[in-house]
Amino acid sequence: MVAVQAHKLFFMKYCYVFIFLLMVSFVGQSQQLIGFSVENTARQLEWEKKFDALLKPGDQAEWMKFLSSHPHHVGSPQGKKNATYMADLFREWGYQVEIAEYQVLFPTPKERLLELLGPRPFKAALKEPALKADMTSGQFNEQLPTYNAYSADGDVTAQLVFVNRGIPADYEELERMGVEVKGKIVIAKYGGSWRGIKPKVAAEHGAIGCIIYSDPEDDGYAQGDTYPEGSFRPAEGVQRGSVMDMPVYPGDPLTPGIGATKDAKRLDRKDVMTIMKIPVLPISYEDAIPLLQSLKGEVVPDGWRGSLPFTYHVGPSVDKVHLKLAFNWDIKPLYNVIAKMKGVELPDEWVIRGNHHDAWVNGAADPLSGMVAELDEAKAIGILVKNGMKLKRSIIFCAWDGEEPALLGSTEWVEDHQVELKKKAVAYINTDGNSRGFLGAGGSHIFEPFINQVAEAVTDPQTGVSIRERRYAKTIVDAAPSARAKLMGKKDIKLSALGAGSDWGAFLQYLGISSLNLGFGGEGRGGEYHSIYDSYDMFTRFKDPGFAYGVALSETAGRTVLRLANAEVLPVDFNSFYNTVNDYVNEIMKMLETMRTEEEEQQKMLEEKLYDLAKDPTKILAAPKDKGAVPFLDFSKLENAMVLLKQASGDFKETYKNAVNLPGEKRQELNEILYNAERSLIREKGLPRREWYKHQIYAPGFYTGYGVKTIPGIREAIEERFWDEAQRNIYYVAETIENYTKQVLAANALLQ
Amino acid sequence: MVAVQAHKLFFMKYCYVFIFLLMVSFVGQSQQLIGFSVENTARQLEWEKKFDALLKPGDQAEWMKFLSSHPHHVGSPQGKKNATYMADLFREWGYQVEIAEYQVLFPTPKERLLELLGPRPFKAALKEPALKADMTSGQFNEQLPTYNAYSADGDVTAQLVFVNRGIPADYEELERMGVEVKGKIVIAKYGGSWRGIKPKVAAEHGAIGCIIYSDPEDDGYAQGDTYPEGSFRPAEGVQRGSVMDMPVYPGDPLTPGIGATKDAKRLDRKDVMTIMKIPVLPISYEDAIPLLQSLKGEVVPDGWRGSLPFTYHVGPSVDKVHLKLAFNWDIKPLYNVIAKMKGVELPDEWVIRGNHHDAWVNGAADPLSGMVAELDEAKAIGILVKNGMKLKRSIIFCAWDGEEPALLGSTEWVEDHQVELKKKAVAYINTDGNSRGFLGAGGSHIFEPFINQVAEAVTDPQTGVSIRERRYAKTIVDAAPSARAKLMGKKDIKLSALGAGSDWGAFLQYLGISSLNLGFGGEGRGGEYHSIYDSYDMFTRFKDPGFAYGVALSETAGRTVLRLANAEVLPVDFNSFYNTVNDYVNEIMKMLETMRTEEEEQQKMLEEKLYDLAKDPTKILAAPKDKGAVPFLDFSKLENAMVLLKQASGDFKETYKNAVNLPGEKRQELNEILYNAERSLIREKGLPRREWYKHQIYAPGFYTGYGVKTIPGIREAIEERFWDEAQRNIYYVAETIENYTKQVLAANALLQ
Repeated sequence: MVAVQAHKLFFMKYCYVFIFLLMVSFVGQSQQLIGFSVENTARQLEWEKKFDALLKPGDQAEWMKFLSSHPHHVGSPQGKKNATYMADLFREWGYQVEIAEYQVLFPTPKERLLELLGPRPFKAALKEPALKADMTSGQFNEQLPTYNAYSADGDVTAQLVFVNRGIPADYEELERMGVEVKGKIVIAKYGGSWRGIKPKVAAEHGAIGCIIYSDPEDDGYAQGDTYPEGSFRPAEGVQRGSVMDMPVYPGDPLTPGIGATKDAKRLDRKDVMTIMKIPVLPISYEDAIPLLQSLKGEVVPDGWRGSLPFTYHVGPSVDKVHLKLAFNWDIKPLYNVIAKMKGVELPDEWVIRGNHHDAWVNGAADPLSGMVAELDEAKAIGILVKNGMKLKRSIIFCAWDGEEPALLGSTEWVEDHQVELKKKAVAYINTDGNSRGFLGAGGSHIFEPFINQVAEAVTDPQTGVSIRERRYAKTIVDAAPSARAKLMGKKDIKLSALGAGSDWGAFLQYLGISSLNLGFGGEGRGGEYHSIYDSYDMFTRFKDPGFAYGVALSETAGRTVLRLANAEVLPVDFNSFYNTVNDYVNEIMKMLETMRTEEEEQQKMLEEKLYDLAKDPTKILAAPKDKGAVPFLDFSKLENAMVLLKQASGDFKETYKNAVNLPGEKRQELNEILYNAERSLIREKGLPRREWYKHQIYAPGFYTGYGVKTIPGIREAIEERFWDEAQRNIYYVAETIENYTKQVLAANALLQ
Repeated sequence: MVAVQAHKLFFMKYCYVFIFLLMVSFVGQSQQLIGFSVENTARQLEWEKKFDALLKPGDQAEWMKFLSSHPHHVGSPQGKKNATYMADLFREWGYQVEIAEYQVLFPTPKERLLELLGPRPFKAALKEPALKADMTSGQFNEQLPTYNAYSADGDVTAQLVFVNRGIPADYEELERMGVEVKGKIVIAKYGGSWRGIKPKVAAEHGAIGCIIYSDPEDDGYAQGDTYPEGSFRPAEGVQRGSVMDMPVYPGDPLTPGIGATKDAKRLDRKDVMTIMKIPVLPISYEDAIPLLQSLKGEVVPDGWRGSLPFTYHVGPSVDKVHLKLAFNWDIKPLYNVIAKMKGVELPDEWVIRGNHHDAWVNGAADPLSGMVAELDEAKAIGILVKNGMKLKRSIIFCAWDGEEPALLGSTEWVEDHQVELKKKAVAYINTDGNSRGFLGAGGSHIFEPFINQVAEAVTDPQTGVSIRERRYAKTIVDAAPSARAKLMGKKDIKLSALGAGSDWGAFLQYLGISSLNLGFGGEGRGGEYHSIYDSYDMFTRFKDPGFAYGVALSETAGRTVLRLANAEVLPVDFNSFYNTVNDYVNEIMKMLETMRTEEEEQQKMLEEKLYDLAKDPTKILAAPKDKGAVPFLDFSKLENAMVLLKQASGDFKETYKNAVNLPGEKRQELNEILYNAERSLIREKGLPRREWYKHQIYAPGFYTGYGVKTIPGIREAIEERFWDEAQRNIYYVAETIENYTKQVLAANALLQ
């Protein structure tokens, strides 16, 4: 700002103070809603009150009971029944409903065999027993067996090696310990990464088979009493799940980038990059015990051991393990339910709300707990519309099929409708499993103040304070005393960044549609995940008895949807986005510095042979390999771009308050800029080695899976030490930020 | 320093540079030894070379084999045999030998019963089985049963409660969880504090019995393969040990402050403060399993669970536990072996070297591995003296009896000879169990540069570098990468502070005799501690096969003794003491600040009801109690005292180099000041509530036991929130430091 403008600025500041005081006096106790005029705030709050009153835990219970009554995975009879059931409900509530069907590759087991050979042979049961206390656990004929979808077919016999979590760092450690995995079968603990990373990294290191087991340390007896006494994983419980290489692309593996319609052009299965290269099988800890006990070799490093009552060894085993897997590689139909309530004023602006409905087995918690909350929202909105509420924008409720195998339903629908979605989608709001506890919220950071205002308006059913207050209390109480000072008084929820894990993927990372993911958790912990014990009985005993948090989720996601649908100006704050991205940039620059310092130290340690000197000579532990010098990179273009974004987003924050007063046409122009801004974070060429992922700020990690990598083009290149690629991506991200800033400047121009 | 002195200072500095260059050229490759003239350095190094050549792993093996051939606890036939055996050896090597006998209270079990009542009754085996692979493990008739010495007699029946490690913080947590321990029997895991703390704190909270078990997490299968396949504690292994309240006073409980001679005036047993108030019994994890599984109530907090294969609960149990213990409260004789080699020049200056010889059972590692190293030193010195080495000062080798029950032998001998020791003792050098690995060194900080010079001269048997270099390598390799920058290049060993745990206690903390404790470890880890499996077979397979580190310990402790005995000026550096104590003072002041900040935050959290809001309402967890405001304390007197010490000790460091050139009489006067300086750290009235402990800088923690508390008078008063006591002790410590500084100034005056 130059000096001549100081007077004007001074005047403007006073003006804002005046306007603010005016607002406060007008709205009284209730705050003005972001993006709403004073009078529309009052109207909106009235509707929200009525909305809350329509939510019914009894309805949620009833729907969950039906939907979870039989296994309902992709292609199952109950899966189709559930789609029809929900379509009928939506229709009854006044929605235009469509069942969007796609044809997807979904392998199911034909043969599963896992045995330990040698003098003490053992054959794994690969079977979860029925429990009297769990009504649906005995539906054996309908259940999918325990397996990892998109494993390779295979028949392999080899020695076994324990690889801890099976992430790249574990293999570095194994190499130091002189343990060869080439030609071996590896056994990894669940956890520490998305499961699909484990066989992928194993195959990269030459392993010919992969077994993944649930260690009781993570969700079994070490965490709490096991089912049915408590909620944690019993000895025979198995975590099913997909191992498709989703960090490359999700959705139907045969139709990347296009909808898997009946006549879509399909890849040949043998050309598909994302199907796992080796056979993979998940097992229980009961089945894992004889395998782990067969391992010889060194005792595992400290952090590797689990909670089984014996000493863990890295292997290899003397006795060989035989793993034989064969699958039906069928194309199966899936059924998304798409229910639309048209907006009156802006029907071509879509607020999209989704949750998946398919499960690995009965799936009460995952996904139905979120699904029934969504249904309750849809029901209430349907009634409100009947009672005269005028939606400004259209709302589309989605119930996705095929999320579990590979986000199939949502991805195919988004790919199929990409042209229309790019034009019309305002935002996508996702939920999935839900339980008692604390609000978790992640997504596009432009929504941070907005979500905080929503969270302030929802009352926690257990304590009577707002869910924002309760989450703050938890943050403070759980913080290390030394970290509390920094956190005290800071009640704003910081949105987490979204990686993979549920159906926002295609919306956010493929198309650049601003997205949110909402859910409660922390007090309904258990070990039912992807097992036959994720049932109505389990859920209503341990996870959210009485569905109080189901209703709280409806109140939260419902408000989010309703406010996005009715706001005069979309509730966007570019400044929160700037602050967050700026933190990421600083984090990455600091990471590079740290890598350099540590590399220099490492080189010195190698020169001085400190690893050899410190080592116990009775054990095998070679010095780590020198990874080579860490160069300086030129961040200037990105830093300059960030300075401009800072200024533009700061200006926007100042003038946004005026936006509701803009004349209609200008306001509409502004809204279009606001919801399209996220599109400019898309780079059409995508990320290195995975062009499907186009968002330059958020992506699932190539080697973490669910775990997000922010500014992935730069961050992962640095982590992988691809220095040229890192430098190139600094330019790409800088350009992306420049394009984004242009949108912010365009918005500012309208607001002047 | 004022300006007029600048010229003089300038000249002096140059002078030092010149002297230093002279030294370097004289000594050539080998450094001048601290406290030795150039010519005596050369002579000393020659003797040390010969000393090293006389050390024999075969001798150490042979002595250990004999000494560990039968259980040799206090009052056992083998205990007396061992004393005689060693006395004969010392005598053969030319020492004046005495067996110093004392009569001490040493209870042994008459009856032990532990059972779980109710519908699934269980009676604990309380028995460690013999193993074929372990020659001496079957000597049942000679073994002390598994028990805790100085437990109360008792016959109690009550519900059981799990108290984690049984330290005060655990009871605060239990109180928050609504678990009452009054009238209950508690079960605690070994570890996390000295064992005697557990029943003491339990009794303070109203418990009527205490069981302590070895969780496999700490030294069983979670750490490595169990004995005899590996070195870790087998399912039935039990850790015996004393539970006398040694943080109040060690030694014979009936004769505090005086030697337990035949005719000593004894307390009545019922008046003894240090005998445990409730019955206590140590058990194996095999015996613990049914007891732990009988516990109901909440699942334990995260950090509390161990490695047994079920969910840990805090209790109480429904079924009651019955614990019945009765002991023979006998007075038993103990036999210290005291072997003296007279100094030629200064026979009344004593360098004392000790290790205990009693064990809980066969005790190969604890204590014989250190004992045989000491014997080897004594043997070598005996031969060197025969071959013409003239010791300047006297060396006294001690083999203590009764260390295990309560440092009985050393404490009674020190109390008995306190007048003479105060006058003559130059230093006490202790060792105890030893194994492969890295040098550990603790003690009086005036010896820090000295010990580093010793460590630089000893070669690590596994790597061929000095033991100082190897320890540095380990420190760097084990450091978190983020912490390495601060550590790189800093090769000096920082002495740890001495609390309790072995026989230095009476020397250092009762009389103020500068002390050191030396030992190797880190690569001989196991679970044999205080069990029948601490045997010759175990030791020679897992802990130090070939006795290479036994020899390394002899080289280290032997050099320490020889240099202290022969130095022209004692190798003392007040500056290291200043730096260390200054760190402690800053640490304590920072701790008070942190307590204040955390208390303020806590109050705010309580006011805002954050604990109630964060809490899972299905669980019991009350907000913590408000402990009240943390006042400001006046540290100024201590801070001023530290400034004077800094200056004095800095000056000493500058002029110490001249000391070897002082004329004989003055040098002698200086030496007396140097070894008496530590006496001025003694305050005759002792520490609050435990006057036996008189050292103002080092003491075992009142609630940690072995764990040291530095500047305990202030630190513990602050921790316990006894604010007046803390303030008073700041004055006491300041006075102590002032007195100490006077000694340093007196030394400086001589050196001018």
